[in-house]
Amino acid sequence: MKIGHKKKNGDVMTAKILINGYGSIGKRVADAVACQKDMEVIGVTKTKPDFEAKMALEKGYKLYAAVPERAHLFEEAGLEISGTIDDVIQDADLVVDGAPKKIGKQNLENLYKKNNVKAIIQGGEKANDAEDSFNSLWSYDRCYGKDAIRLVSCNTTGLCRSLYAIDSITDVLKARVVLIRRAVDPNDSKKGPVNAIIPSTDVPSHHGPDVESVIKKFKGKIISSAVIVPTTLMHMHSLMVETTGATKDDIVDAIAKTPRIFTVKASEGLDSTAALIEMSRDMGRLRYDLNEIPVWEESINVIDNEIFMMQAVHQESDVIPENVDCIRAMLQMEEDNIKSIEMTNKAMGLLK
Amino acid sequence: MKIGHKKKNGDVMTAKILINGYGSIGKRVADAVACQKDMEVIGVTKTKPDFEAKMALEKGYKLYAAVPERAHLFEEAGLEISGTIDDVIQDADLVVDGAPKKIGKQNLENLYKKNNVKAIIQGGEKANDAEDSFNSLWSYDRCYGKDAIRLVSCNTTGLCRSLYAIDSITDVLKARVVLIRRAVDPNDSKKGPVNAIIPSTDVPSHHGPDVESVIKKFKGKIISSAVIVPTTLMHMHSLMVETTGATKDDIVDAIAKTPRIFTVKASEGLDSTAALIEMSRDMGRLRYDLNEIPVWEESINVIDNEIFMMQAVHQESDVIPENVDCIRAMLQMEEDNIKSIEMTNKAMGLLK
Amino acid sequence: MKIGHKKKNGDVMTAKILINGYGSIGKRVADAVACQKDMEVIGVTKTKPDFEAKMALEKGYKLYAAVPERAHLFEEAGLEISGTIDDVIQDADLVVDGAPKKIGKQNLENLYKKNNVKAIIQGGEKANDAEDSFNSLWSYDRCYGKDAIRLVSCNTTGLCRSLYAIDSITDVLKARVVLIRRAVDPNDSKKGPVNAIIPSTDVPSHHGPDVESVIKKFKGKIISSAVIVPTTLMHMHSLMVETTGATKDDIVDAIAKTPRIFTVKASEGLDSTAALIEMSRDMGRLRYDLNEIPVWEESINVIDNEIFMMQAVHQESDVIPENVDCIRAMLQMEEDNIKSIEMTNKAMGLLK
Amino acid sequence: MKIGHKKKNGDVMTAKILINGYGSIGKRVADAVACQKDMEVIGVTKTKPDFEAKMALEKGYKLYAAVPERAHLFEEAGLEISGTIDDVIQDADLVVDGAPKKIGKQNLENLYKKNNVKAIIQGGEKANDAEDSFNSLWSYDRCYGKDAIRLVSCNTTGLCRSLYAIDSITDVLKARVVLIRRAVDPNDSKKGPVNAIIPSTDVPSHHGPDVESVIKKFKGKIISSAVIVPTTLMHMHSLMVETTGATKDDIVDAIAKTPRIFTVKASEGLDSTAALIEMSRDMGRLRYDLNEIPVWEESINVIDNEIFMMQAVHQESDVIPENVDCIRAMLQMEEDNIKSIEMTNKAMGLLK
Ligand SMILES: NC(=O)c1ccc[n+]([C@@H]2O[C@H](COP(=O)([O-])OP(=O)(O)OC[C@H]3O[C@@H](n4cnc5c(N)ncnc54)[C@H](O)[C@@H]3O)[C@@H](O)[C@H]2O)c1
Ligand SMILES: NC(=O)c1ccc[n+]([C@@H]2O[C@H](COP(=O)([O-])OP(=O)(O)OC[C@H]3O[C@@H](n4cnc5c(N)ncnc54)[C@H](O)[C@@H]3O)[C@@H](O)[C@H]2O)c1
Ligand SMILES: NC(=O)c1ccc[n+]([C@@H]2O[C@H](COP(=O)([O-])OP(=O)(O)OC[C@H]3O[C@@H](n4cnc5c(N)ncnc54)[C@H](O)[C@@H]3O)[C@@H](O)[C@H]2O)c1
Ligand SMILES: NC(=O)c1ccc[n+]([C@@H]2O[C@H](COP(=O)([O-])OP(=O)(O)OC[C@H]3O[C@@H](n4cnc5c(N)ncnc54)[C@H](O)[C@@H]3O)[C@@H](O)[C@H]2O)c1
Repeated sequence: MKIGHKKKNGDVMTAKILINGYGSIGKRVADAVACQKDMEVIGVTKTKPDFEAKMALEKGYKLYAAVPERAHLFEEAGLEISGTIDDVIQDADLVVDGAPKKIGKQNLENLYKKNNVKAIIQGGEKANDAEDSFNSLWSYDRCYGKDAIRLVSCNTTGLCRSLYAIDSITDVLKARVVLIRRAVDPNDSKKGPVNAIIPSTDVPSHHGPDVESVIKKFKGKIISSAVIVPTTLMHMHSLMVETTGATKDDIVDAIAKTPRIFTVKASEGLDSTAALIEMSRDMGRLRYDLNEIPVWEESINVIDNEIFMMQAVHQESDVIPENVDCIRAMLQMEEDNIKSIEMTNKAMGLLK
Repeated sequence: MKIGHKKKNGDVMTAKILINGYGSIGKRVADAVACQKDMEVIGVTKTKPDFEAKMALEKGYKLYAAVPERAHLFEEAGLEISGTIDDVIQDADLVVDGAPKKIGKQNLENLYKKNNVKAIIQGGEKANDAEDSFNSLWSYDRCYGKDAIRLVSCNTTGLCRSLYAIDSITDVLKARVVLIRRAVDPNDSKKGPVNAIIPSTDVPSHHGPDVESVIKKFKGKIISSAVIVPTTLMHMHSLMVETTGATKDDIVDAIAKTPRIFTVKASEGLDSTAALIEMSRDMGRLRYDLNEIPVWEESINVIDNEIFMMQAVHQESDVIPENVDCIRAMLQMEEDNIKSIEMTNKAMGLLK
Repeated sequence: MKIGHKKKNGDVMTAKILINGYGSIGKRVADAVACQKDMEVIGVTKTKPDFEAKMALEKGYKLYAAVPERAHLFEEAGLEISGTIDDVIQDADLVVDGAPKKIGKQNLENLYKKNNVKAIIQGGEKANDAEDSFNSLWSYDRCYGKDAIRLVSCNTTGLCRSLYAIDSITDVLKARVVLIRRAVDPNDSKKGPVNAIIPSTDVPSHHGPDVESVIKKFKGKIISSAVIVPTTLMHMHSLMVETTGATKDDIVDAIAKTPRIFTVKASEGLDSTAALIEMSRDMGRLRYDLNEIPVWEESINVIDNEIFMMQAVHQESDVIPENVDCIRAMLQMEEDNIKSIEMTNKAMGLLK
Repeated sequence: MKIGHKKKNGDVMTAKILINGYGSIGKRVADAVACQKDMEVIGVTKTKPDFEAKMALEKGYKLYAAVPERAHLFEEAGLEISGTIDDVIQDADLVVDGAPKKIGKQNLENLYKKNNVKAIIQGGEKANDAEDSFNSLWSYDRCYGKDAIRLVSCNTTGLCRSLYAIDSITDVLKARVVLIRRAVDPNDSKKGPVNAIIPSTDVPSHHGPDVESVIKKFKGKIISSAVIVPTTLMHMHSLMVETTGATKDDIVDAIAKTPRIFTVKASEGLDSTAALIEMSRDMGRLRYDLNEIPVWEESINVIDNEIFMMQAVHQESDVIPENVDCIRAMLQMEEDNIKSIEMTNKAMGLLK
């Protein structure tokens, strides 16, 4: 396994990152890495020459065929590729995998490990597919210097942030969460449902244990259930967290002090996921990404030491800054997670 | 106030029911009353001469103008009305109000009380707008002989049934419920959202206290939150109920023994609200009404004495048989709630 | 090939119909056949033991495994089957195929022809997969006594009816139709889109030629384009038909005289596909099927001899009565299409 | 009426633009004006202190109360306003009205005319509410120096562009257009439909005449019908244009030469409105605005001299660059429409 990032004769040597799987997550990670000072994107891969591949080239990324046997498709479509993944993987300090669920694990076993290159796989994979599960607030140190890490899902990332805020002011005894999940990402026109609610009939759902894979001390304390509903914009979480005590003001303060999570007010017109996305569009965010977790201030309430609150999760983007921090941890580029978070946020233009 | 239903010289005297507001709820109550042996529909009212008014006439109901000043609209449209509500209200033993939210209360004050006629108002009204809140299982006796009763909402009715099953085998310590609400009824093409999730930012939401208005002993024990999602078919509830203990088998049994609630299996293809409605269509139900509450058997689980389960609620129809029972209670037609439930179910063709 | 239906010694011998593929179309054809006097359902097939299979048994149909190797699944699920399709196909006078797109053609080649049994395949198949394309109004005579017939799609059936009405009063010079298609049937929770419009980028779309496969004299005269939109209830057609001349009154009259198509008024509240389905629910139709084609009266207009009108198509049900008529034609049970239409309509309770 | 823009002693005097009604259209026009060299935004108005008002302040716009009596609401909410519209209107060379349908007309009569200030009202108003109807390609000259102009709707603007391309190579004999309209803008969570198609039962719809208000020579030649479908992203148009002759290549070329319209390929994955918006997000467009009209190349076809094609319209943004050009025309800042188009496009970063 290659050694991570090193500084040489005063110059800063930037970490060389390859993005394998330039889809919803992959393309965002590429753009987030590209705007950091200490990293660079040495290439992105695509399985087919569609408009996303074209766009990658227009943005100036070197394009590689993710599946060598399909390289000819790019030529036939008149898209210039710099080779296949086999031609570039050895140059990478770390690969960020952005392939679909289950393919990430296969890539890790068949490609990244074989080529002795560090790799991040995404939240579609299982906790034990990698050495550990990453969240910038909770497991940065645990993942420091590691070779194969799973960046947890959008839902888990969102819960890790709100639980961090809560944990900073009180003790969590038991957390119950109901996840109302968006059906598909907004670019998808194939999957449904069009007009139905689909329950995850396994209750508790896998989301609780997934949070616990990041926050070991919450083992057995997070219980979740989930439904899928016909919308594309964001997930929604209803949290009910039994604690040893806290006030609404405490919680609002704690959220204000926690990175990448903030409160919003329905009374200001931010009364649905549609309004939140409109805000993000107005803010001029690239692809309207709302990387931070918005919590409705009106929804925060404490009864009998139990905290209630509702938050939304922009599934396409909340994990993106975490990927950048994870790179820094795995390549031992920065020891302090808060410093990495600040660097990432500043480069990406996040609010906090 | 008129005295309720009485039998005379051997003949059964049927209760004379007027339906004021023949919309989603009103038209279903009309059909449910019409098929009972001990009641009859003496008339239904409409505010305008639309296709629902036509359909009422075709079904053989006598049609009255709900708003006397609008009577001329019916004539102009060529629809034969038998008069206005003022012409018929004195003949009614009881009026079932089916007017929209807030209008029910007004009708009660300005119309039913003034005409000294018993009345049921629906779940859009508030608990203290009437003498008590009705559910066939929980408050039949309390409403017996009363003059003005509120028939609680579809969501509250659904929760009352599952909590009845649970209460029959264990003690409820605390119940947490997250309601994922359908946006509009399927006949509505005006309201949204089209592609958003809308949180009720008051947490806990009003649904918990509403259940407690029916089940007084649960005072302070039911905590709920709610979101609205872009679907028309059914609501969904995720229940988390702390108890003194129960097994999954106990719960399945208890549900089997409780009227108007049953278990369904996702493994049989009943894996979404869309599939449940398809089942109801296949069963030949009028308007595909699924008056019973379906609970996903796979979702029932007990951890640390806390019961988890997911249920769906067909918002248009679960309260309909309750309206029939409520009539019997208010008009003192049957003392035993279980007997009324059985009569109603049999006449309507319910499963249980 | 077996000879069709014959009457023997005074008794009426009913045609023995097997339904292969008891899905959206298959189950409806079964129920429509079952209520005819001159036919009976000798069995229905399912590929898996889901709730639809259970429902078929509850309705009293004999259930067979469509795929012999999967017969054990039914036993394991505790569902009683009467055997596999191989055990029953020889007893059938005719098989109505209800299998998904492309499977119907395979079944015809591999199963029905091999067993020498007459068969109807549905609109998912191509025109030249069968001997001819059926519509009760246009091609009954052509299909009389034939062995393998394609019952055209819901959209084609809808257009055949409105074009029949128009053709009865004027000459069609050119018809342009834009089809706004429902995304999925209401029982489907898997396919999308959730929030997108998908164009058929082949313009003209295949729908025009498909109509021409039924109405040969319109060869080259029907031009269509199509989009898919996120709704489940009905398709919508915008028709623009150049003719040699007609008035709006002529058209309204012609529609009134044509079977299985009628006018509705938006002014009566029937102003969307949602309202039309509500009407059908109110009418007490099984599964709310609206087998007739509704045309908005307000939308009918004639400018420069070009007829404009908008109609909706209940995709799940408009082809069902046609399947019944097609059986009568293929088995030579009734020579006169109008008589068959009347028999079918009466048995099914259609308006006209 | 004030005289329009003039240059003084070498310096360029920028046109002072006030945006009255900072909603979907208003905020986009503000940003588009702000990035032009020859204009500036002197203020924007809001009726209430919501998040959009906050965002306007954060962007550096001076905020004014649109309704003087509501000024106190802003103070109460802690939002700094620079006064009410009455304080700023006299400083404006031109007001761009962005108020909802019908309010624009009222504002023109009661506010702009009274204050003797030039004004653009938007497409929600009627053709004869203003002096003329604007499109950069068709009526720039007609609107030159005028005082009150209506900027036509998103649909009309889209059609004006494709018809311009077609008109540049052949003669339009008759155009038929079916509009499949998005239900609401993506920020809206109040209006529906959730699961229905709503026809405009007036056929032809008002869209044809609206195009003719811009392109006088097409008087009587444009016939349209329209439906509303449950999606938020874009409208879709199916065009059928009878001409004196053209080839597909001609049309593709003509589109390539026409400003603000381009072809896209479904074969590259751009096969739905969802994919088009994804492309726009990837392009880094502010609020993902796709100001240009995309036409599906695969859908372009010519049969018997009739052109078929399908195009999408990003309703929130296609009219924005037209507003900028309209300002230049009305204030006589640039005589040549093509030069204005180029200036606008360059400043806004449009593709063409
Ligand atoms: N989209 C989300 O909401 C979201 C949020 C958090 C985490 N995730 C996780 O991120 C991962 C990627 O999801 P996504 O939504 O970006 O998927 P996506 O479908 O948008 O993108 C996947 C990309 O991988 C490419 N690909 C397919 N096979 C490949 C292979 N063998 N090698 C390399 N690339 C291949 C595809 O062409 C596509 O470009 C999944 O694990 C998912 O669970 C997704
Ligand atoms: N639809 C549901 O899901 C549902 C479920 C349970 C309870 N409820 C409750 O039932 C009540 C009725 O709701 P709905 O969904 O049937 O509404 P609806 O809009 O379908 O029907 C209301 C009917 O009342 C008529 N109406 C209006 N003003 C009237 C007046 N002044 N007098 C008499 N009639 C009048 C309307 O014309 C309409 O026919 C509400 O309280 C609602 O909260 C509705
Ligand atoms: N649903 C509509 O809107 C509609 C309208 C008109 C025509 N059609 C056509 O009707 C046909 C059936 O469509 P559907 O919507 O009823 O489909 P469906 O998916 O609802 O039902 C198909 C049924 O066939 C069964 N099946 C699968 N493989 C089979 C096999 N090898 N042999 C026998 N059965 C098999 C499936 O289990 C299922 O029960 C298609 O050709 C379709 O294009 C559908
Ligand atoms: N959104 C579109 O798709 C679209 C496209 C093209 C044209 N248009 C037209 O643009 C106009 C504006 O539409 P929109 O979609 O931007 O609406 P919108 O509802 O998004 O915004 C309207 C804004 O006007 C404000 N407003 C209300 N009353 C006002 C008053 N009296 N004075 C000043 N401001 C007032 C509202 O607060 C809101 O901020 C309409 O004529 C509409 O038809 C809209």
